[in-house]
Amino acid sequence: MFDVLLAHIQEKVTLSATDVAVLKSFFIPKKLRKRQYVLQEGDVCKYLLFVEKGLLRMYHVDEKGTEHMIQFAWEGWWMADTYSFLSGDVSEYNIDATEDAELLMITLENFEALLLQAPVMERYFRILFQNNIISKEKRLVNTISYSAEEKYTRMAAANPQLLQRIPQNLIASYLGITPETLSRIRKKLMKSK
Amino acid sequence: MFDVLLAHIQEKVTLSATDVAVLKSFFIPKKLRKRQYVLQEGDVCKYLLFVEKGLLRMYHVDEKGTEHMIQFAWEGWWMADTYSFLSGDVSEYNIDATEDAELLMITLENFEALLLQAPVMERYFRILFQNNIISKEKRLVNTISYSAEEKYTRMAAANPQLLQRIPQNLIASYLGITPETLSRIRKKLMKSK
Repeated sequence: MFDVLLAHIQEKVTLSATDVAVLKSFFIPKKLRKRQYVLQEGDVCKYLLFVEKGLLRMYHVDEKGTEHMIQFAWEGWWMADTYSFLSGDVSEYNIDATEDAELLMITLENFEALLLQAPVMERYFRILFQNNIISKEKRLVNTISYSAEEKYTRMAAANPQLLQRIPQNLIASYLGITPETLSRIRKKLMKSK
Repeated sequence: MFDVLLAHIQEKVTLSATDVAVLKSFFIPKKLRKRQYVLQEGDVCKYLLFVEKGLLRMYHVDEKGTEHMIQFAWEGWWMADTYSFLSGDVSEYNIDATEDAELLMITLENFEALLLQAPVMERYFRILFQNNIISKEKRLVNTISYSAEEKYTRMAAANPQLLQRIPQNLIASYLGITPETLSRIRKKLMKSK
């Protein structure tokens, strides 16, 4: 159950046997069926989630009822509404399973206790958050500066796995374009290959 | 010269006298006149910058020559093209001074040495990056989901100081709208007060 998590952490820092025991004591395992929720808009995001298996999506629903994909997460990825998780304010997001999933979840209280009891995790999360900032910066520039076709091409280059695994309508929403526009772009790119 | 930096760090963690000495040894002070650059597109972002005094902006110039504001930073803020700084790849961004500025700069080599010699800084940067992720998430939702007027209203509520200090054309660029649209929104909001 902890295989993917421990491997992911040990790519970045060295864990002692005590660190591993501390880690295991703080996480709650949870299985999720496709379409089940772990977070609904209006609730507080009580857990930081790690995906051991499966695929999650986080999205926002605007006043017109349109879904806007914020993030996807599969094996080896963390997910949370970071703001709601840390502040205790209610979330504007939803998180549900796009495929059956096995998760490891940690509460804010236990996240803070973990960092005190296993300080090596400060370094792990510093590196993790650092990498997250990089990808968010890249996405922001994509969103502001590029055409729909350029956005898709850049995403395809950065995350080939994402395009195979995630339904087209969710990818369109992630890029902030309509499914019809995405379909037109894909046809055009296939022709030009 | 280190007043703002040390105060900022000590809001989040406790520094020993040794930590302070280590910190001071790793930063290079730099004064910047209005409009001077610290980073130009095509160069590697060699420094993580901390603003002791003044105001910086980071922006991207697209193929049509249009500037897109990415971030502003004044007293107590960090700034860098995080991706370029960490990877050593060339940057797509520019950073220059919107007001005369006094900076503290650290190289990647010294940033890594600092984290090893003063491990309390792992906790500081973990918290800093965590907060940065929250604000980036909020901005992304703003960019994707809201109208120009909603974007401006949310920004005004979150950063009242920003609106007073930063020229209107840069705020418009930050929001991804034209200066004319921003001017129209501001007039409408003033009337409705």
